[in-house]
Amino acid sequence: MPAPIRKINLDAAFDRFSAHWQPRVLGAVNDAEVKIARLSGPFVWHRHADADELFLVLQGRLRIELRDGTAALPPVELAPGELVIVPRGVEHRPVAAADCRVLLLEPAGTVNTGDTADARATPGIPLD
Amino acid sequence: MPAPIRKINLDAAFDRFSAHWQPRVLGAVNDAEVKIARLSGPFVWHRHADADELFLVLQGRLRIELRDGTAALPPVELAPGELVIVPRGVEHRPVAAADCRVLLLEPAGTVNTGDTADARATPGIPLD
Repeated sequence: MPAPIRKINLDAAFDRFSAHWQPRVLGAVNDAEVKIARLSGPFVWHRHADADELFLVLQGRLRIELRDGTAALPPVELAPGELVIVPRGVEHRPVAAADCRVLLLEPAGTVNTGDTADARATPGIPLD
Repeated sequence: MPAPIRKINLDAAFDRFSAHWQPRVLGAVNDAEVKIARLSGPFVWHRHADADELFLVLQGRLRIELRDGTAALPPVELAPGELVIVPRGVEHRPVAAADCRVLLLEPAGTVNTGDTADARATPGIPLD
Protein backbone atom coordinates (compact mmCIF):
# COMPACT_ATOMS: atom_id res chain seq x y z
CA MET A 1 0.00 0.00 0.00
CA PRO A 2 1.38 3.45 -0.83
CA ALA A 3 2.53 5.63 2.03
CA PRO A 4 -0.15 7.91 3.45
CA ILE A 5 -0.11 11.49 2.27
CA ARG A 6 0.41 13.65 5.33
CA LYS A 7 -0.77 17.13 6.05
CA ILE A 8 1.46 19.73 7.64
CA ASN A 9 0.20 21.98 10.40
CA LEU A 10 2.19 25.19 10.12
CA ASP A 11 2.03 26.10 13.83
CA ALA A 12 3.29 22.63 14.78
CA ALA A 13 6.06 22.90 12.19
CA PHE A 14 7.22 26.23 13.64
CA ASP A 15 7.29 24.66 17.10
CA ARG A 16 10.03 22.31 15.91
CA PHE A 17 12.73 24.94 15.46
CA SER A 18 13.66 28.31 16.83
CA ALA A 19 16.60 29.66 14.81
CA HIS A 20 16.07 32.77 12.72
CA TRP A 21 16.98 32.96 9.04
CA GLN A 22 17.29 29.15 8.81
CA PRO A 23 14.42 28.01 6.59
CA ARG A 24 12.93 24.57 7.06
CA VAL A 25 11.85 22.62 3.99
CA LEU A 26 8.29 21.32 4.25
CA GLY A 27 8.19 19.55 0.93
CA ALA A 28 8.64 19.62 -2.81
CA VAL A 29 6.00 20.78 -5.25
CA ASN A 30 7.25 19.96 -8.71
CA ASP A 31 10.65 21.68 -8.99
CA ALA A 32 9.90 24.09 -6.17
CA GLU A 33 10.23 23.74 -2.43
CA VAL A 34 7.91 25.06 0.22
CA LYS A 35 9.80 26.36 3.21
CA ILE A 36 8.98 28.15 6.42
CA ALA A 37 11.26 30.49 8.28
CA ARG A 38 11.44 32.58 11.41
CA LEU A 39 12.83 36.01 10.64
CA SER A 40 13.98 38.74 12.99
CA GLY A 41 15.74 41.98 12.19
CA PRO A 42 17.58 42.79 8.98
CA PHE A 43 18.93 40.21 6.55
CA VAL A 44 21.57 40.79 3.86
CA TRP A 45 21.03 42.42 0.49
CA HIS A 46 21.09 39.67 -2.12
CA ARG A 47 19.60 38.52 -5.38
CA HIS A 48 18.67 35.21 -6.99
CA ALA A 49 19.72 35.41 -10.63
CA ASP A 50 17.45 32.60 -11.81
CA ALA A 51 14.78 32.29 -9.13
CA ASP A 52 11.57 34.10 -8.35
CA GLU A 53 10.84 33.95 -4.63
CA LEU A 54 7.49 34.14 -2.88
CA PHE A 55 7.12 35.42 0.68
CA LEU A 56 3.80 34.94 2.51
CA VAL A 57 3.71 36.44 5.99
CA LEU A 58 1.98 34.24 8.57
CA GLN A 59 2.83 36.21 11.71
CA GLY A 60 4.44 39.55 12.45
CA ARG A 61 5.60 42.17 10.01
CA LEU A 62 8.11 42.04 7.18
CA ARG A 63 9.49 44.86 5.06
CA ILE A 64 11.24 43.85 1.88
CA GLU A 65 13.57 46.54 0.61
CA LEU A 66 14.13 46.36 -3.13
CA ARG A 67 16.44 47.66 -5.80
CA ASP A 68 16.85 46.77 -9.44
CA GLY A 69 20.35 47.52 -10.62
CA THR A 70 20.96 51.07 -9.56
CA ALA A 71 17.26 51.90 -9.26
CA ALA A 72 15.69 51.89 -5.81
CA LEU A 73 12.21 50.42 -5.86
CA PRO A 74 9.52 51.15 -3.26
CA PRO A 75 9.81 48.72 -0.36
CA VAL A 76 6.97 46.31 0.27
CA GLU A 77 5.48 46.17 3.77
CA LEU A 78 3.79 42.87 4.58
CA ALA A 79 1.39 41.96 7.37
CA PRO A 80 -0.07 38.50 8.05
CA GLY A 81 -2.10 37.29 5.07
CA GLU A 82 -0.05 39.31 2.60
CA LEU A 83 2.40 37.99 0.03
CA VAL A 84 4.84 39.26 -2.52
CA ILE A 85 6.72 37.61 -5.37
CA VAL A 86 10.23 39.02 -5.78
CA PRO A 87 11.17 38.44 -9.42
CA ARG A 88 14.48 36.86 -10.28
CA GLY A 89 17.35 39.29 -10.52
CA VAL A 90 15.81 41.90 -8.26
CA GLU A 91 18.04 42.66 -5.30
CA HIS A 92 16.22 42.57 -2.01
CA ARG A 93 16.72 42.77 1.73
CA PRO A 94 14.11 41.40 4.12
CA VAL A 95 13.83 43.33 7.39
CA ALA A 96 11.57 41.65 9.92
CA ALA A 97 9.91 42.57 13.17
CA ALA A 98 10.72 40.25 16.09
CA ASP A 99 9.90 36.63 15.29
CA CYS A 100 8.13 37.14 12.03
CA ARG A 101 6.98 33.88 10.45
CA VAL A 102 6.89 33.38 6.70
CA LEU A 103 6.11 30.71 4.17
CA LEU A 104 8.50 30.72 1.22
CA LEU A 105 8.27 29.24 -2.22
CA GLU A 106 11.27 29.04 -4.54
CA PRO A 107 13.10 26.49 -6.70
CA ALA A 108 14.55 23.56 -4.79
CA GLY A 109 18.08 24.30 -3.66
CA THR A 110 17.71 28.09 -3.66
CA VAL A 111 20.10 29.51 -1.06
CA ASN A 112 18.55 32.13 1.20
CA THR A 113 21.40 34.59 0.73
CA GLY A 114 21.46 34.28 -3.05
CA ASP A 115 24.70 35.70 -4.46
CA THR A 116 25.87 37.21 -1.16
CA ALA A 117 28.38 35.56 1.17
CA ASP A 118 26.92 35.33 4.67
CA ALA A 119 27.25 32.94 7.61
CA ARG A 120 23.51 32.29 7.52
CA ALA A 121 23.58 30.92 3.96
CA THR A 122 21.57 27.71 3.57
CA PRO A 123 19.45 26.04 0.90
CA GLY A 124 17.04 25.10 3.68
CA ILE A 125 17.08 22.40 6.33
CA PRO A 126 14.74 19.38 6.38
CA LEU A 127 12.05 19.89 9.01
CA ASP A 128 13.18 16.82 10.90
CA MET B 1 12.24 53.12 -13.74
CA PRO B 2 11.07 49.50 -13.30
CA ALA B 3 7.48 48.91 -12.28
CA PRO B 4 6.90 48.69 -8.53
CA ILE B 5 6.66 45.23 -7.06
CA ARG B 6 3.26 44.94 -5.49
CA LYS B 7 2.13 42.93 -2.52
CA ILE B 8 -1.12 40.99 -2.53
CA ASN B 9 -3.44 41.04 0.43
CA LEU B 10 -5.27 37.71 0.42
CA ASP B 11 -8.46 38.97 2.07
CA ALA B 12 -8.72 41.79 -0.46
CA ALA B 13 -8.10 39.35 -3.30
CA PHE B 14 -10.91 37.07 -2.10
CA ASP B 15 -13.22 40.10 -1.97
CA ARG B 16 -12.85 40.46 -5.74
CA PHE B 17 -14.68 37.27 -6.68
CA SER B 18 -17.35 34.99 -5.30
CA ALA B 19 -17.62 31.92 -7.54
CA HIS B 20 -16.69 28.56 -6.09
CA TRP B 21 -14.21 26.21 -7.78
CA GLN B 22 -12.95 28.98 -10.07
CA PRO B 23 -9.37 29.68 -8.99
CA ARG B 24 -7.90 33.14 -9.44
CA VAL B 25 -4.26 33.43 -10.46
CA LEU B 26 -2.30 35.76 -8.19
CA GLY B 27 1.00 35.46 -9.96
CA ALA B 28 3.78 33.33 -11.37
CA VAL B 29 6.68 32.01 -9.33
CA ASN B 30 9.13 30.45 -11.76
CA ASP B 31 7.10 27.86 -13.69
CA ALA B 32 4.42 27.65 -11.03
CA GLU B 33 1.35 29.74 -10.42
CA VAL B 34 -0.07 30.83 -7.10
CA LYS B 35 -3.83 30.74 -7.11
CA ILE B 36 -6.60 31.25 -4.59
CA ALA B 37 -9.99 29.61 -4.68
CA ARG B 38 -13.26 29.53 -2.84
CA LEU B 39 -14.45 25.97 -2.41
CA SER B 40 -17.79 24.64 -1.26
CA GLY B 41 -19.08 21.10 -1.21
CA PRO B 42 -17.65 18.19 -3.20
CA PHE B 43 -15.52 18.55 -6.32
CA VAL B 44 -14.84 15.83 -8.90
CA TRP B 45 -12.39 12.97 -8.60
CA HIS B 46 -9.43 13.77 -10.82
CA ARG B 47 -5.67 13.50 -11.13
CA HIS B 48 -2.86 15.57 -12.58
CA ALA B 49 -0.50 13.18 -14.36
CA ASP B 50 2.47 15.55 -14.32
CA ALA B 51 1.73 18.04 -11.58
CA ASP B 52 2.11 18.04 -7.83
CA GLU B 53 -0.48 20.32 -6.24
CA LEU B 54 -0.29 22.17 -2.94
CA PHE B 55 -3.41 23.12 -0.96
CA LEU B 56 -3.08 25.53 1.98
CA VAL B 57 -6.34 26.17 3.83
CA LEU B 58 -6.84 29.80 4.82
CA GLN B 59 -10.42 29.60 6.07
CA GLY B 60 -12.93 26.83 6.70
CA ARG B 61 -12.37 23.12 6.43
CA LEU B 62 -11.29 20.93 3.53
CA ARG B 63 -11.18 17.16 3.27
CA ILE B 64 -9.13 15.74 0.42
CA GLU B 65 -10.12 12.20 -0.42
CA LEU B 66 -7.33 10.22 -2.04
CA ARG B 67 -6.73 7.05 -3.98
CA ASP B 68 -3.72 5.74 -5.81
CA GLY B 69 -4.73 3.39 -8.58
CA THR B 70 -7.08 0.96 -6.91
CA ALA B 71 -5.74 1.64 -3.43
CA ALA B 72 -7.73 3.95 -1.17
CA LEU B 73 -5.49 6.22 0.86
CA PRO B 74 -6.50 7.84 4.13
CA PRO B 75 -8.20 11.19 3.46
CA VAL B 76 -6.52 14.36 4.69
CA GLU B 77 -8.57 16.76 6.82
CA LEU B 78 -7.32 20.32 6.69
CA ALA B 79 -8.08 23.27 8.95
CA PRO B 80 -6.78 26.84 8.53
CA GLY B 81 -2.99 26.91 8.68
CA GLU B 82 -2.68 23.37 7.36
CA LEU B 83 -1.38 22.30 3.97
CA VAL B 84 -0.94 19.17 1.93
CA ILE B 85 0.96 18.39 -1.24
CA VAL B 86 -0.90 15.93 -3.46
CA PRO B 87 1.76 14.18 -5.55
CA ARG B 88 1.33 13.91 -9.30
CA GLY B 89 -0.68 10.92 -10.40
CA VAL B 90 -2.59 10.54 -7.16
CA GLU B 91 -6.32 10.73 -7.71
CA HIS B 92 -8.04 13.13 -5.35
CA ARG B 93 -11.37 14.73 -4.58
CA PRO B 94 -11.57 17.90 -2.51
CA VAL B 95 -14.70 18.16 -0.35
CA ALA B 96 -15.08 21.54 1.32
CA ALA B 97 -17.17 23.04 4.07
CA ALA B 98 -19.17 26.11 3.06
CA ASP B 99 -16.94 28.84 1.60
CA CYS B 100 -13.61 27.30 2.36
CA ARG B 101 -10.73 29.44 1.15
CA VAL B 102 -7.50 27.93 -0.11
CA LEU B 103 -4.19 28.98 -1.59
CA LEU B 104 -3.00 26.67 -4.37
CA LEU B 105 0.37 26.14 -5.93
CA GLU B 106 0.81 24.14 -9.11
CA PRO B 107 2.47 24.43 -12.52
CA ALA B 108 1.18 27.28 -14.68
CA GLY B 109 -1.71 26.11 -16.80
CA THR B 110 -2.77 23.23 -14.54
CA VAL B 111 -6.49 22.68 -14.99
CA ASN B 112 -8.40 22.29 -11.72
CA THR B 113 -10.24 19.18 -12.90
CA GLY B 114 -7.12 17.42 -14.18
CA ASP B 115 -8.04 14.53 -16.44
CA THR B 116 -11.77 14.66 -15.67
CA ALA B 117 -14.34 16.38 -17.87
CA ASP B 118 -16.38 18.85 -15.82
CA ALA B 119 -18.13 22.15 -16.47
CA ARG B 120 -15.99 23.82 -13.81
CA ALA B 121 -12.72 23.04 -15.61
CA THR B 122 -10.38 26.03 -15.77
CA PRO B 123 -6.63 26.67 -15.70
CA GLY B 124 -7.40 29.62 -13.45
CA ILE B 125 -8.67 33.13 -14.12
CA PRO B 126 -6.61 36.30 -13.78
CA LEU B 127 -7.57 38.13 -10.61
CA ASP B 128 -8.93 41.09 -12.53
